[in-house]
Amino acid sequence: MNNQNQLYDIGVIGLGVMGKNLALNIADNQYKVAAFDLDAHKVQDTVQQEERERKQYLKQITEPRILGCNNLSEMLSKLEKPRVLLLSVPAGAPVDGVCKSLIEAGIESDDIVIDTGNSLWTDTVEREQRYSKDFAFFSCAVSGGEVGARFGPSLMPSGSLTAWNRIEPIWQAIAAKVDAKTGLPIERFEPGNPVIEGEPCTTYIGPAGSGHYVKMVHNGIEYADMQLICEAYQLLHQGLGLTAAEVGDVFERWNQGSLNSYLMEISADVLKQADPLTGAPLVEMILDKAGQKGTGLWTAVSSLQIGCPAPTIAEAVYARAVSTQKSQRQQLNQLLSGPSESIKVEEQQAFINQLENALYCAKVSCYAQGFQLMAMQAKEQGWQLDFAEIAKIWRAGCIIRATFLQSITQAYQQDSELENLLMADTFAKGLSDKQHDWRIAVSTAAMGGIPAPCISSALAYYDSYRSVTLPANLLQGQRDYFGAHTFERTDRPAGEKYHLNWSSDRCLHKV
Amino acid sequence: MNNQNQLYDIGVIGLGVMGKNLALNIADNQYKVAAFDLDAHKVQDTVQQEERERKQYLKQITEPRILGCNNLSEMLSKLEKPRVLLLSVPAGAPVDGVCKSLIEAGIESDDIVIDTGNSLWTDTVEREQRYSKDFAFFSCAVSGGEVGARFGPSLMPSGSLTAWNRIEPIWQAIAAKVDAKTGLPIERFEPGNPVIEGEPCTTYIGPAGSGHYVKMVHNGIEYADMQLICEAYQLLHQGLGLTAAEVGDVFERWNQGSLNSYLMEISADVLKQADPLTGAPLVEMILDKAGQKGTGLWTAVSSLQIGCPAPTIAEAVYARAVSTQKSQRQQLNQLLSGPSESIKVEEQQAFINQLENALYCAKVSCYAQGFQLMAMQAKEQGWQLDFAEIAKIWRAGCIIRATFLQSITQAYQQDSELENLLMADTFAKGLSDKQHDWRIAVSTAAMGGIPAPCISSALAYYDSYRSVTLPANLLQGQRDYFGAHTFERTDRPAGEKYHLNWSSDRCLHKV
Repeated sequence: MNNQNQLYDIGVIGLGVMGKNLALNIADNQYKVAAFDLDAHKVQDTVQQEERERKQYLKQITEPRILGCNNLSEMLSKLEKPRVLLLSVPAGAPVDGVCKSLIEAGIESDDIVIDTGNSLWTDTVEREQRYSKDFAFFSCAVSGGEVGARFGPSLMPSGSLTAWNRIEPIWQAIAAKVDAKTGLPIERFEPGNPVIEGEPCTTYIGPAGSGHYVKMVHNGIEYADMQLICEAYQLLHQGLGLTAAEVGDVFERWNQGSLNSYLMEISADVLKQADPLTGAPLVEMILDKAGQKGTGLWTAVSSLQIGCPAPTIAEAVYARAVSTQKSQRQQLNQLLSGPSESIKVEEQQAFINQLENALYCAKVSCYAQGFQLMAMQAKEQGWQLDFAEIAKIWRAGCIIRATFLQSITQAYQQDSELENLLMADTFAKGLSDKQHDWRIAVSTAAMGGIPAPCISSALAYYDSYRSVTLPANLLQGQRDYFGAHTFERTDRPAGEKYHLNWSSDRCLHKV
Repeated sequence: MNNQNQLYDIGVIGLGVMGKNLALNIADNQYKVAAFDLDAHKVQDTVQQEERERKQYLKQITEPRILGCNNLSEMLSKLEKPRVLLLSVPAGAPVDGVCKSLIEAGIESDDIVIDTGNSLWTDTVEREQRYSKDFAFFSCAVSGGEVGARFGPSLMPSGSLTAWNRIEPIWQAIAAKVDAKTGLPIERFEPGNPVIEGEPCTTYIGPAGSGHYVKMVHNGIEYADMQLICEAYQLLHQGLGLTAAEVGDVFERWNQGSLNSYLMEISADVLKQADPLTGAPLVEMILDKAGQKGTGLWTAVSSLQIGCPAPTIAEAVYARAVSTQKSQRQQLNQLLSGPSESIKVEEQQAFINQLENALYCAKVSCYAQGFQLMAMQAKEQGWQLDFAEIAKIWRAGCIIRATFLQSITQAYQQDSELENLLMADTFAKGLSDKQHDWRIAVSTAAMGGIPAPCISSALAYYDSYRSVTLPANLLQGQRDYFGAHTFERTDRPAGEKYHLNWSSDRCLHKV
């Protein structure tokens, strides 16, 4: 029997797949959870799953570790003060709905409410202000999907340090863990026994909103990383004629090298999966219309607004948009010609190796874009982001986890002020060594009629940053010509503006 | 002497270069203008310029056609009712500032206030609502820069039809004109005698905000068009080693063919211009940091938000952003390797011809993106946009004017519901014929280490729309794997969602 006077460590509000799994993960770590959802069935389901798993995996523990609550007032009465409440409800209006209900139910000003949904970071900044008199609004972005939530996600908390100090032990307990020596995730796939050794994939990110911003950029990188893998698949499958399973084999091999990542691993797995209904490769039975939930486009929008080049992330968002217009594509396929023959490569295996290098380069380019975006936004907002730590907490739990992140951590440990990841020795050298193969891949895709928007865009990004002089000089000339927008001169101090009287005497004036 | 009892046709508020030139243009067309600016010198300057030009060009006219006003109350007392007021003030807060002052000065509810600045279209929608009790807020986007404003701009008015009917004669008079037979602009470069024959480059666009939206997309296309020309310049100059003047010659030749456009014409002119200070090609003395005023990025942001693929417009915005980071580029130039030799082409003139075709294809691709964006937004907003008319009013006056727009008009006249410009016979055929050369250009740039983000992105757009099957099937598989986001099947009706239990029994479930 549950002790009626016992106080609970944390309240979890919203028991969808993420909320439920976070609650179970917290319970695994010996914290006592009060759980609530507007749907009583979900409350019951969570309590029952905890009981079932406890009996199966933890026979010596007899006390329930999750209490189902009937309403928020009951939940508040059961929690130790200052209370800690974790929200797992859809982003947007529902978050404010729960906050309002909590105020009505008597939440106190030193209680902490943690939004774990995919909220837009600016909403988080506003909410911290709006609720400051009623309670401490804190946010924690969660990456890792449902499995991550259950067995160890990557957690990006931001808000007041007081709140963070209160919740830090729980967060460190439930986060994914990385082996400090190898930098590799310590996997856990069973309820009950949490991983207690290792480096937890959570760190205090900074002031309100910064955690959600960092998570947003994580997702933007994820969009680009996924699309890059898809482009490689199309080149190998449609271009070289490899079967889905053969591409799966190639990806498995790549996953042993510098491209090792969770996304590469699951892509290989997806490609080798047979369709239970038809026996065909499942991937070929899946409709090629990609969904999206918004974080990728928020990243691209933010990069445009702040003036940070993140073209490969934007191309990945657009690639999903094109995919949804299938009927237009079917019509245009009949109208638009392609090359007379598909990909021409002299030696298949050589091209596969070149594509592996191309993918590595394009991936580094995407990460450079994402990290530069975080740096520019941090500067704008006055956040002190620790990029070595951010790369560290992405090494496990989250969707873009990859051994590769270890190199990013090291690059920022060597120079925390690194302006662009491409400047780090390891990446500058890696890309310089592999750039020829990258060019072959882009060229082969273009000549072969296979769209490779992200691999190509990433190369243009690389070549743009290699260019001491870009044709923006002509562009400034055009702008001065039609709009008198003025230009600076290479032989005069920065800030001095000049205008040529294009439509009259062609004299030059300092403005 | 001016007749004290005479009423004026229109008030112009804000006499910066655009406002002043619009006022003079209106006066050329025999309308009487009351002019005001907070800066009394600008008022005086406008009145004096009108007088000077009248004496020089229109000796038979003795009456001043522009009245300088000391304040808004005076202006309101001088205008015929219902009054027409043209605002030419910076976008944002200044527009609302003037509106407030007009209310204080006694504007009446059937008076019309026309915002001609580069306002964000959603601000325009809000303003029409906000001021509906005080006056009719109308908007008219203006393209053509200072010369266009003076001698004939392209005008994109939107708002209430009542207001439009009142101002239409003035708008038709001051707009740029196109020869109905040839589709070519009728040029005018002198004060005094307005062009009265020809098709005026103005048409009622639609409800509030639609004109500014259409102008915003015009500017997005302009960004891409400018960047494409710049990439061609860099390929010819840095790649083939042509001098600036030689590239100017190439552009002059291209301007005689299907690439004929104002931007191509002025680019040739800029490239052939010598620097008055050093005698070197001016373009090489211009600092390669591109400025921007926001409309390009608004277009890209809008396309992301609405889910319309406009990658080449976004790449153009990012290209400007990269250009501003010159010190980073200088550092990275030392660290990142390029190809051992620059562009290898077998025959220089052949490559120049291929690049001409590539540029044409990339340009069509950009316009397709822009028109699709307008169509998708129109659907979202319930606007009935007439794309044949929109292409028509862009044939003269505006920055992207080009003979090419005649073909777009014809394409929409043949099929006003055209989903994508690439479906029009003329473009589908043109691109199919030229796509091989486009591929050569992209491939040559990639192999030669010359960044060509827009030419490349436009090709990826073309090839994506040619693809019946995109690798978004793998992407949906990835999303279902890590996030249970489900997928549709190619052999089942649209809307049926499936999920595979990737982490357990690998059974397929209809969700």
